[in-house]
Amino acid sequence: MKVVLVFLLLVWSCGACPVTAQDNLRDRVVTDTVCSEVLGVKRAYTVCLPKSYYADKSRKYPVLYLLHGMWGNNADWTGRGHVQDVLDRLTASGEACEMVIVTPDAGGGDPEIFQNGYFDMPEWKYETFFFTEFLPFVEKKYRIESGRSHRAVAGLSMGGGGAVSYGQRHPDLFCAVYAMSALMDIPEQGAARFDNPDGKLARLTRSVIERSCVKYVRESDEKCKEQLRLLSWFVDCGDDDFLLDRNIEFFQAMREAGIPCQFRVRDGGHDWEYWHSALYQCLPFVSRAFDDK
Amino acid sequence: MKVVLVFLLLVWSCGACPVTAQDNLRDRVVTDTVCSEVLGVKRAYTVCLPKSYYADKSRKYPVLYLLHGMWGNNADWTGRGHVQDVLDRLTASGEACEMVIVTPDAGGGDPEIFQNGYFDMPEWKYETFFFTEFLPFVEKKYRIESGRSHRAVAGLSMGGGGAVSYGQRHPDLFCAVYAMSALMDIPEQGAARFDNPDGKLARLTRSVIERSCVKYVRESDEKCKEQLRLLSWFVDCGDDDFLLDRNIEFFQAMREAGIPCQFRVRDGGHDWEYWHSALYQCLPFVSRAFDDK
Amino acid sequence: MKVVLVFLLLVWSCGACPVTAQDNLRDRVVTDTVCSEVLGVKRAYTVCLPKSYYADKSRKYPVLYLLHGMWGNNADWTGRGHVQDVLDRLTASGEACEMVIVTPDAGGGDPEIFQNGYFDMPEWKYETFFFTEFLPFVEKKYRIESGRSHRAVAGLSMGGGGAVSYGQRHPDLFCAVYAMSALMDIPEQGAARFDNPDGKLARLTRSVIERSCVKYVRESDEKCKEQLRLLSWFVDCGDDDFLLDRNIEFFQAMREAGIPCQFRVRDGGHDWEYWHSALYQCLPFVSRAFDDK
Amino acid sequence: MKVVLVFLLLVWSCGACPVTAQDNLRDRVVTDTVCSEVLGVKRAYTVCLPKSYYADKSRKYPVLYLLHGMWGNNADWTGRGHVQDVLDRLTASGEACEMVIVTPDAGGGDPEIFQNGYFDMPEWKYETFFFTEFLPFVEKKYRIESGRSHRAVAGLSMGGGGAVSYGQRHPDLFCAVYAMSALMDIPEQGAARFDNPDGKLARLTRSVIERSCVKYVRESDEKCKEQLRLLSWFVDCGDDDFLLDRNIEFFQAMREAGIPCQFRVRDGGHDWEYWHSALYQCLPFVSRAFDDK
Repeated sequence: MKVVLVFLLLVWSCGACPVTAQDNLRDRVVTDTVCSEVLGVKRAYTVCLPKSYYADKSRKYPVLYLLHGMWGNNADWTGRGHVQDVLDRLTASGEACEMVIVTPDAGGGDPEIFQNGYFDMPEWKYETFFFTEFLPFVEKKYRIESGRSHRAVAGLSMGGGGAVSYGQRHPDLFCAVYAMSALMDIPEQGAARFDNPDGKLARLTRSVIERSCVKYVRESDEKCKEQLRLLSWFVDCGDDDFLLDRNIEFFQAMREAGIPCQFRVRDGGHDWEYWHSALYQCLPFVSRAFDDK
Repeated sequence: MKVVLVFLLLVWSCGACPVTAQDNLRDRVVTDTVCSEVLGVKRAYTVCLPKSYYADKSRKYPVLYLLHGMWGNNADWTGRGHVQDVLDRLTASGEACEMVIVTPDAGGGDPEIFQNGYFDMPEWKYETFFFTEFLPFVEKKYRIESGRSHRAVAGLSMGGGGAVSYGQRHPDLFCAVYAMSALMDIPEQGAARFDNPDGKLARLTRSVIERSCVKYVRESDEKCKEQLRLLSWFVDCGDDDFLLDRNIEFFQAMREAGIPCQFRVRDGGHDWEYWHSALYQCLPFVSRAFDDK
Repeated sequence: MKVVLVFLLLVWSCGACPVTAQDNLRDRVVTDTVCSEVLGVKRAYTVCLPKSYYADKSRKYPVLYLLHGMWGNNADWTGRGHVQDVLDRLTASGEACEMVIVTPDAGGGDPEIFQNGYFDMPEWKYETFFFTEFLPFVEKKYRIESGRSHRAVAGLSMGGGGAVSYGQRHPDLFCAVYAMSALMDIPEQGAARFDNPDGKLARLTRSVIERSCVKYVRESDEKCKEQLRLLSWFVDCGDDDFLLDRNIEFFQAMREAGIPCQFRVRDGGHDWEYWHSALYQCLPFVSRAFDDK
Repeated sequence: MKVVLVFLLLVWSCGACPVTAQDNLRDRVVTDTVCSEVLGVKRAYTVCLPKSYYADKSRKYPVLYLLHGMWGNNADWTGRGHVQDVLDRLTASGEACEMVIVTPDAGGGDPEIFQNGYFDMPEWKYETFFFTEFLPFVEKKYRIESGRSHRAVAGLSMGGGGAVSYGQRHPDLFCAVYAMSALMDIPEQGAARFDNPDGKLARLTRSVIERSCVKYVRESDEKCKEQLRLLSWFVDCGDDDFLLDRNIEFFQAMREAGIPCQFRVRDGGHDWEYWHSALYQCLPFVSRAFDDK
């Protein structure tokens, strides 16, 4: 549409308005697959590239891994989250820096039928795949700066829990974590309620309980806390979200542990209007963390 | 997805969280057609219904006509503008009242090929259709309160110009107008540049010049100004928008004429991130106008 | 300064800019005293009047009681909170309605030396004073609409706790409560730590524990909850505020009780930048409640 | 008050809340004077120091010169603008970096009686004083990083015009300019209207016309434009401000000249609510410019 607008502008206007041709946005949202030996399948992923990516072929960029939620997939953040549009807006105003944003596929729909989840569980070593196969693959394929000070992770719901847990257990790999409506934990009773404890949803539930982000902070020793303080943390959850109490517990645990953590409760529930608007805080937040080299 | 979330909540939680079944959102976004004798064709439209619509069958609602832009159609505001999600969010918090939001189809794609536009022009008496056929049809079919104090109009780009012009020339029908990145006018030279003055885009261009929102204010006499003061006006345009100067001229003309008009220049261009975020101002604004009966 | 700006404008400009003389702002911030038989002293209060107050002498207005915090007094909300400026801004844009804003004096400085607090306690029957003397006095002296649907209460810190508790125990008198960084409760141990249990701060502490806003909700029966649902509630507390956990407990109790309550955690601590910015949410919120007659 | 809050917290709480003693805020707002040979008098100034200033005695900071308006003085930005509170808030959240903020005194009240203004004029060589005496003095006295990439200038009204003009004519000294409700220009007729052309206000008016920010951009050659592109520019003016049209003209001139410039029109007039809220955009904006070394 932009090309036509420029045409109209030229047709209609008296002249001097400085409009330059723009990179076609679509080319900067790339969906591709990676062959995983760990998972034994091809997995899709979507990459969102910054404006200057094709123009400046020698430049490297920081990277944000942006994780989707349960029932979701790699296409969600661009398809409904419009992250490419938010990135372009915020880099134009300078509020965010140019970065590569990557969404892997950690689900395939209904968690009763398809495997979902960011952690290792029987028949689904997703975390192993992520760190030993996916991350090196992506960072080699795209021009991404190396080192933890140029790498952040964020996500919504199950992906928010994944982001926090990845940050907690890999503080040497990330400089910032932004959690939206995050599945920080599931009460113990959650796992006990499944008739079939080997069902996919039951396994996923157990994996989240085992990787409880809240418990991880509460049980961390001083050395571990020191590691966690190396990262910038941001927790963002709506006042109508059914996961709010889990996020409150996480924030309180962080505060108790003396680990600086931003906390926001904005208006809203567990929905895309919340997550889309969260990007306007998330991208500037990780940009500032990238700057603090 | 919400149904499954509730299921998960019940599976995982310890109990007492008060979650109630929700109206299926999809049923509240309705796309249908109306047969137009004026246009000689069927035209599509999309209606977005408020949360209580099916539950409270005796209640009537105010209505917002929300107009799409050139190259667009009736599906844009729900498909990319997510207006139904914004409406639900803002009515939940009380910032907007429950209302029916209607987007007619005033275009069919490329304006070189398909007819576009909100004004009467040769072979496309759209404004006649809108006021004599469409508006009465919709307000009969859906439970809409009668009278100007329950009717507002808004739109983006070409639809923003349409909204302002409809409000200007039908002040007895609307109580509020919210213009986003509005095509308030086209410089005279715009019309002269077409090789084929009978082409669809040439005709559309002329119709906009004839209906210039800026000229209308500048040339209005005191009686007309008095009529315009009956409406609430809001003009919203991005600092990177190629239509900004037209919107500045309109605001200055309104100020000169002593017609109160809110004016905002926010960060952004001629794009959906701008128009989507504008809804967070637009829906509360028209809600306040509905209240001022 | 405004007068001089208008002068400059006339001196500098070419003419037609429509600037009208404005009510002197100072006359609309009035500080006066009321003689209290209950307290046995004169107490000061500050009233902030809306723009049209002197121009339209037959018009009545809704009222917001805006309570100060410990160590504070009636001058705080105008002196540091700039509430008169926020009111003027928001009524100009239509986001808030014109209202009278009243701040009584419930403290005199250091709570070890001066009596502080909104509740009845030995030698300081402030709540009795407020409801039997102050409120009737103010609503007679100023042109205030009668009835709960035109009366709201808000406050910061100790005044936030006061606002919530007043709303809880007088649901027939208020239609909306907005709590900022509210002292919703004090842990039981708080009272036990004073060497002199008859000191002013010890008494104040006990009065807050007895009037615990959290306990009140938890222990309310269904009939009481039904009463509380008649009001609109808003709880707003910073992520760095030492009272955040008390506010979380209150919100959770409200949710558990099925009483709708907005909840926000914004960036900030227990300070005036937080409370001043809260006014931009508070005044529209109570305005909407006034509308819902 | 903070000290007492900490006391209360200790008295009331059960323990573990991590509250640390804070620098006394008052010591970080310093008002002092500088002897000016150029002006032949002592001039006051106010400095606002960042949180770590006294703790980390080897650290140097970037500097923001924040200019007051006509009738104003050096105490305005701290006294009514609460810039020290905004700085503390935004550095706590990481949205702004720690910086030294300096407000010189370029006025003494009524411009008919006292000299006002940021430019050189007969008997008031303020610009000469600013660049040859004040700036070197301040940057020696306080621990300020050297070089243009660590120096920004901002201001309101007359100070906004001063900030823009200083940036325009000293692009080697500043990396960012943020103008609030800026006196970008005065129409030529403005100067002709004074009975006494040697009066202080008449002289000030002429100095602004001579230093017209709009004219400067329009008349700049390509080399000059190239210099101006080295700075980051932000123009912010309310929709009810009597100076809005001058700011629009400036932004249009910048756009025409191909010099990137952010432009915002927010709700409001020529008042402190506008300027105070502008700080929440200004401090992050200049912080990002400081980062782009």
